[in-house]
Amino acid sequence: METQITLKVEWGDCDPARIVFYPNYFRWFDQSTHHLFEQAGCSMGNLMDQYGGILPIVDAQASFKAPSRYGERIEITSTVSEWHERTLKVLHRVRNSGILSVEGYEMRAWVIPDESHPKGIRSAPIPDALKSAFLSL
Amino acid sequence: METQITLKVEWGDCDPARIVFYPNYFRWFDQSTHHLFEQAGCSMGNLMDQYGGILPIVDAQASFKAPSRYGERIEITSTVSEWHERTLKVLHRVRNSGILSVEGYEMRAWVIPDESHPKGIRSAPIPDALKSAFLSL
Amino acid sequence: METQITLKVEWGDCDPARIVFYPNYFRWFDQSTHHLFEQAGCSMGNLMDQYGGILPIVDAQASFKAPSRYGERIEITSTVSEWHERTLKVLHRVRNSGILSVEGYEMRAWVIPDESHPKGIRSAPIPDALKSAFLSL
Amino acid sequence: METQITLKVEWGDCDPARIVFYPNYFRWFDQSTHHLFEQAGCSMGNLMDQYGGILPIVDAQASFKAPSRYGERIEITSTVSEWHERTLKVLHRVRNSGILSVEGYEMRAWVIPDESHPKGIRSAPIPDALKSAFLSL
Repeated sequence: METQITLKVEWGDCDPARIVFYPNYFRWFDQSTHHLFEQAGCSMGNLMDQYGGILPIVDAQASFKAPSRYGERIEITSTVSEWHERTLKVLHRVRNSGILSVEGYEMRAWVIPDESHPKGIRSAPIPDALKSAFLSL
Repeated sequence: METQITLKVEWGDCDPARIVFYPNYFRWFDQSTHHLFEQAGCSMGNLMDQYGGILPIVDAQASFKAPSRYGERIEITSTVSEWHERTLKVLHRVRNSGILSVEGYEMRAWVIPDESHPKGIRSAPIPDALKSAFLSL
Repeated sequence: METQITLKVEWGDCDPARIVFYPNYFRWFDQSTHHLFEQAGCSMGNLMDQYGGILPIVDAQASFKAPSRYGERIEITSTVSEWHERTLKVLHRVRNSGILSVEGYEMRAWVIPDESHPKGIRSAPIPDALKSAFLSL
Repeated sequence: METQITLKVEWGDCDPARIVFYPNYFRWFDQSTHHLFEQAGCSMGNLMDQYGGILPIVDAQASFKAPSRYGERIEITSTVSEWHERTLKVLHRVRNSGILSVEGYEMRAWVIPDESHPKGIRSAPIPDALKSAFLSL
């Protein structure tokens, strides 16, 4: 399953070099992950209610191959590229006029509430039901 | 009581016109209001615990008199300029090298939890204790 | 002439109170103004080339009537509500499920390059051609 | 050479999970890199004038080990951990109460203007003078 969002690069997304200020790509990665999960029927706002846990980010990376500028339209395609026992990897590709301009990932971990844990949460295996929601698509 | 914060204008705060993208001033207004309340001993993160309510924004405005640029230092002074029964006004002044460059306000309302209300909250008179915390300074 | 953009409130747009962090509304006001001018055939990125000036913000204000939350869709309608000799006012209305939730404006001034001026720019009358582009729509 | 900046986590930096929205860490990475270069006498706003090139980002990554919350103070230490012929790596470590909470890097490439190049810029060896400015510290 792969989803796509289209965005216009806004004036406020760009810096004095007249290109997208790079942290915004991570904002869009997050946005695209939320869209991906919603399309799979697992709204990230409801993961706790639906599956008893949440998916905080544990690692993120991006390679910047070409800049984008004010007024340009970009497409972000996202997919869960790796399923591990307790983590999953969302792969993001940003294209501008069909050219791959940014590529990156977010690694997210499944964590559940745990009162006995000093942090109040602990890592746990990703529920099969969550995995199935994606793989059946 | 008036408080002051000093900020450096960062690269990512500026737009392709090479000046501060104006919504950032409101981000700094909010930051300065939080600082003001903290200095008065009323952390905005603890208002509910301390005084049983919160202070959501109901109105904000700014006049932009001169732009600021990457690398410049700005000072924001803030004070509660008006106390009304159910609202208060925080006045913000941004200076760059001593010159007033932005002036604006935030109007905030005191609201308390109210289960019988459709929104779950309702407006209420600002507690005297909160007002006193400021006026005694 | 009135234009409309539709946005989804993203996770990163919201604060710990689980509502939109208010400076984002000004980011969206700016975005909607850019859309409005583009629809009128006057891209804000080309104003200098097309009309010999730019439209920096001189004043902005918003009244916050109801909060919006993660995942909700909002519509922003924008129009130039006032034309003055050297300034114009863009009126913005944000609706969530048809309910007016935020209303505000941006006042923008027409400025042109002026080498003899200490700031390198000066205020000037808005070109008729720019006004006509809007009023003919 | 290692530099350090201290930041307070602001209300608007946090999301509905009440922790820092992760793209903000990259905003702070960028801010800390600018600070690092400034301390080395090479303001990133003057690189073109001083050394004839700029240092756009080509890759960024972060590992999120522990969340930070509204009102907490964090320290970011940054250093150029790797010098390559045409790129350099800035290593960033974020600590909250002394605990390493985020670790990441920015890889930046030296590029110079090149009229004959389709992009108008091309990669080039990092000037010795720039390297020396750091290594002499």
